[in-house]
Amino acid sequence: MTYCVAMSLDAGMIFASDSRTNAGVDQIARFSKMRAFARDGDRVIVMLSSGNLSITQSAVNLVEQRARTDNELSLWNAESMFDVARLIGDSLREVKSRDGPYLLQNNIDSSANFIVGGQIRGEPPRLFDVYSEGNFIEATPETCYFQIGESKYGKPVIDRVVNRGTSLLDATQCTIVSFDSTMRSNISVGLPIDLLVYQADSLKVTLRRRIEESDGYFQLVHTQWGEGLRRVFAQLPDPDWL
Amino acid sequence: MTYCVAMSLDAGMIFASDSRTNAGVDQIARFSKMRAFARDGDRVIVMLSSGNLSITQSAVNLVEQRARTDNELSLWNAESMFDVARLIGDSLREVKSRDGPYLLQNNIDSSANFIVGGQIRGEPPRLFDVYSEGNFIEATPETCYFQIGESKYGKPVIDRVVNRGTSLLDATQCTIVSFDSTMRSNISVGLPIDLLVYQADSLKVTLRRRIEESDGYFQLVHTQWGEGLRRVFAQLPDPDWL
Repeated sequence: MTYCVAMSLDAGMIFASDSRTNAGVDQIARFSKMRAFARDGDRVIVMLSSGNLSITQSAVNLVEQRARTDNELSLWNAESMFDVARLIGDSLREVKSRDGPYLLQNNIDSSANFIVGGQIRGEPPRLFDVYSEGNFIEATPETCYFQIGESKYGKPVIDRVVNRGTSLLDATQCTIVSFDSTMRSNISVGLPIDLLVYQADSLKVTLRRRIEESDGYFQLVHTQWGEGLRRVFAQLPDPDWL
Repeated sequence: MTYCVAMSLDAGMIFASDSRTNAGVDQIARFSKMRAFARDGDRVIVMLSSGNLSITQSAVNLVEQRARTDNELSLWNAESMFDVARLIGDSLREVKSRDGPYLLQNNIDSSANFIVGGQIRGEPPRLFDVYSEGNFIEATPETCYFQIGESKYGKPVIDRVVNRGTSLLDATQCTIVSFDSTMRSNISVGLPIDLLVYQADSLKVTLRRRIEESDGYFQLVHTQWGEGLRRVFAQLPDPDWL
């Protein structure tokens, strides 16, 4: 399983993904689910993926391979994030057309999702959720974040904390808490977390960090959040009917 | 959708269910998903259900109808909660055999789940999770609670707070917080909450309460938990790398 989240805020964007993949509990591995394409001053594009790993890797490979030739529309010459989302949707459809029927023969799920976001010079930052069928939706001020993969455990805290005006610092902290909650309840989501922070209009990656088990900040958040929740819980009023 | 949770603790048991059913967003209704069968001094049996409402209602109807005749093994003369779980599994299988193929013709999901728990004189309290196939598992000291339906949003808080030694009061509060988190993130789970508290070895229902929108205690927990979480969040340390 996988957990990825991306937020599009006034201040910029946050992208984060876990690194655990599994095909059954006895075949667990680490694969980064984040790909960043940046040319300073021109564009920053970040992709997060969940679902069948062979499908997502092949789709990314197609996108990357085509970006190396100058003749076609690609990540490097697209003039809008909308076009980038279309490129990814097209690649996903191409791979699924090729591999899907063979996977289906063994009832293997070929579904795959991408979150893609970033900024291309001349546009504001934009964020898209590309569905397994290759169609996509774009984040808006009202719904400023997307999750893919094992999204439910980590959703309540984001819903309570994050809105379009949240700072990059708070959004980063909330992202880490959201991962902590998810990893506590679902063993198939695991460290390290790949984190990328993008400050709006900077047209370069602000911060990229891999948060490993040993990360002191992660440990601190993990402990303080857990203790804090238990403290809030202990302070809740008692019902007068029990 | 549905959310139900039941806990088996040293001090007793908690059962809770929401009351929203939906067949599409334009067909939302209220149905209680909790059924209690109690004969003071002899037995308390509580059933929670999720899944296809026609299937769960029919299965409960079969169980109830048979409990009215004295000749058969039934809820009222079963000597163990294990036998009760088998009765429910059998009824579920019978209904699915009868209705399942017709639902399948229109690709309608006939899956249904039950949580059943309680105490029969001569036994300790016991709690079972009855799967859609009619087989079931029993809670143990290590895994002392079960959820069915839309379980993920409300799981992290239970994982952090509840263990076998938790008091009935704390477990009730945690249950309400768990419902609050679920309802905040998923519109298909809604008030009122049906709550039943059972004190171990009392062989009668300790408390049964329907928590409506207007419930003062629920509102208080909702507000204080939300504010408390945001306070804990605000007190988290800042990373030194951002």
